[in-house]
Amino acid sequence: MVKGNQSFIFESKPVIISSATVGGPLEAQGPLAEDIDILHDDPYIGQDSFEKAEKLMLEEAAAKALEKAGVNKYDVGLFISGDLINQIISSSFAARTIGVPYLGIYGACSSSMEGLAIAASFVDGQKVKYVLTGASSHNNSAERQYRYPNEYGAQKPPTSQWTVTGAGVCLLALEGEGPRVTAATIGRIVDLGITDPFNMGAAMAPAAVDTIEAHFRDLDIEPDYYDLIVTGDLGAVGHKIALDRFKENGTEISEKKFMDCGMMIYDREKQPQVFAGGSGCASSAVTVYGHLLNKMKSGKIRRLLVVATGALHSPLSYQQKETIPCIAHAVAIEM
Amino acid sequence: MVKGNQSFIFESKPVIISSATVGGPLEAQGPLAEDIDILHDDPYIGQDSFEKAEKLMLEEAAAKALEKAGVNKYDVGLFISGDLINQIISSSFAARTIGVPYLGIYGACSSSMEGLAIAASFVDGQKVKYVLTGASSHNNSAERQYRYPNEYGAQKPPTSQWTVTGAGVCLLALEGEGPRVTAATIGRIVDLGITDPFNMGAAMAPAAVDTIEAHFRDLDIEPDYYDLIVTGDLGAVGHKIALDRFKENGTEISEKKFMDCGMMIYDREKQPQVFAGGSGCASSAVTVYGHLLNKMKSGKIRRLLVVATGALHSPLSYQQKETIPCIAHAVAIEM
Repeated sequence: MVKGNQSFIFESKPVIISSATVGGPLEAQGPLAEDIDILHDDPYIGQDSFEKAEKLMLEEAAAKALEKAGVNKYDVGLFISGDLINQIISSSFAARTIGVPYLGIYGACSSSMEGLAIAASFVDGQKVKYVLTGASSHNNSAERQYRYPNEYGAQKPPTSQWTVTGAGVCLLALEGEGPRVTAATIGRIVDLGITDPFNMGAAMAPAAVDTIEAHFRDLDIEPDYYDLIVTGDLGAVGHKIALDRFKENGTEISEKKFMDCGMMIYDREKQPQVFAGGSGCASSAVTVYGHLLNKMKSGKIRRLLVVATGALHSPLSYQQKETIPCIAHAVAIEM
Repeated sequence: MVKGNQSFIFESKPVIISSATVGGPLEAQGPLAEDIDILHDDPYIGQDSFEKAEKLMLEEAAAKALEKAGVNKYDVGLFISGDLINQIISSSFAARTIGVPYLGIYGACSSSMEGLAIAASFVDGQKVKYVLTGASSHNNSAERQYRYPNEYGAQKPPTSQWTVTGAGVCLLALEGEGPRVTAATIGRIVDLGITDPFNMGAAMAPAAVDTIEAHFRDLDIEPDYYDLIVTGDLGAVGHKIALDRFKENGTEISEKKFMDCGMMIYDREKQPQVFAGGSGCASSAVTVYGHLLNKMKSGKIRRLLVVATGALHSPLSYQQKETIPCIAHAVAIEM
């Protein structure tokens, strides 16, 4: 059902019948490691490029999610996935291995929730029985493409974030046991003129606020409806900006109930190299499809709003002196 | 409704209430020029980069489609778009201008029908009232990114194709007058080991055949059901390969009823620089949303199956010695 200008409700409440996550070396040392199904010490994961390692993580997450649910991949009607690498090769090459009908998406780090919203639309409309949807990122492949190869040792400002190495996938179905996808709010582009690719959090915060406020307005609910509202990868800088904007706008969101996946996935005291926190498609995909869904299953969270944030610039658009257009998509998940 | 392993039916038959197309200099001299709403002599379209010109064409097509339907953009619930440029900046920056909730997709040249299938799912499920969906490509921006900048004057083999400069957009609604989207078949990745980025047609042909045969099998219909089955950008080389494979497989498709947008949009006799024909996201977007929908409206085609084909490699995957994974998505449009 249409709700307001940007939102809709999934009447059948599609069920996340399983999910799985994969992480790299730094994620293995982070506070959410216990909720990550497969952890790798080697950033290459035995492959000969970081891109191939990223693809492999997505394949592993998909296989694990199917295994947990006991669903045969031949019964899966769609695989919807996105990542940060040019032409989303991690997703497309993983789709070749997985062998399921495939829709590639690109929403930068908002891809996780873009995928879940599209997946829920197909399941809700009874177009497919099962949909696998996920996202991946890899620190070394993303840094090389967007900024500098890590091997260069380029210095970073404290506003910068650390691209998460990992993948998260969930399996959505019309019926079954598990958290249910109840509503989504699709973001509009918000661009306040920031051009610094080392300050993604500040660029994306206004988009997160715009989508969250649209969600409450469209669905006519109060922020208190949710036990937790979690953004994808604003990091400490963007998180603070978002809280300030909520205050300015008179949107009453309790600080305890507003968190960021990029701040949860690392311990910034013990892992200072992440600076303002995690970023990348896997920031929300790993945190939500691992840690947060586990919290829902154990009864600690009943209602969750995931707001995945994306910066839709490119190295070329930066060179051409464009500002950074940002977006955020919100998906409500309830037990 | 689920149909077979890869297909589904849109029960409400969403309506294409309007569409619009934009083309560049070579498209203006081609046989479909009369069906293109806005034609540009200058490949820069007054912008300071080809990427910005491509973005502008997408914006023009979207504005024109809205104008034709008399629909205000504030009533449009979604803009779904894809293109070939890294991080699909043409689509994302156009989305910033258009200001409508946005979902970016990446299916290379299959993006046009990937977008239409997703759009139809949202409209059919009554999640949004109106969806704008489209795709764009630009010869100069694509050649520079995927092969060599045109200014280098690199020689090309006769199997190569010419990336179409243009954009095509349609406006989908639950009710109204116009051709209706009745079914879709989502492609699986097909990769027969081709590595030559100057022979996309040969790489993509098996994917087109796979999806077309899945469509007939899933929907339990004969090829004769359609007045025209049109692929996106196989070009002359891929078209011939597809016909040969149909014969081998015993799939009876009349040669008269099986065409390719990349062969229709240019006159290969008068425009020999296109070699095997057109390619790019705009090949199918401009041909279908202009010429073919006009033919449907004038009663010359009643049932159309559009099979947009995409090569999902990247310059990096090519350098890493990967083969080219290909895909094709089919959407049925009926009067």
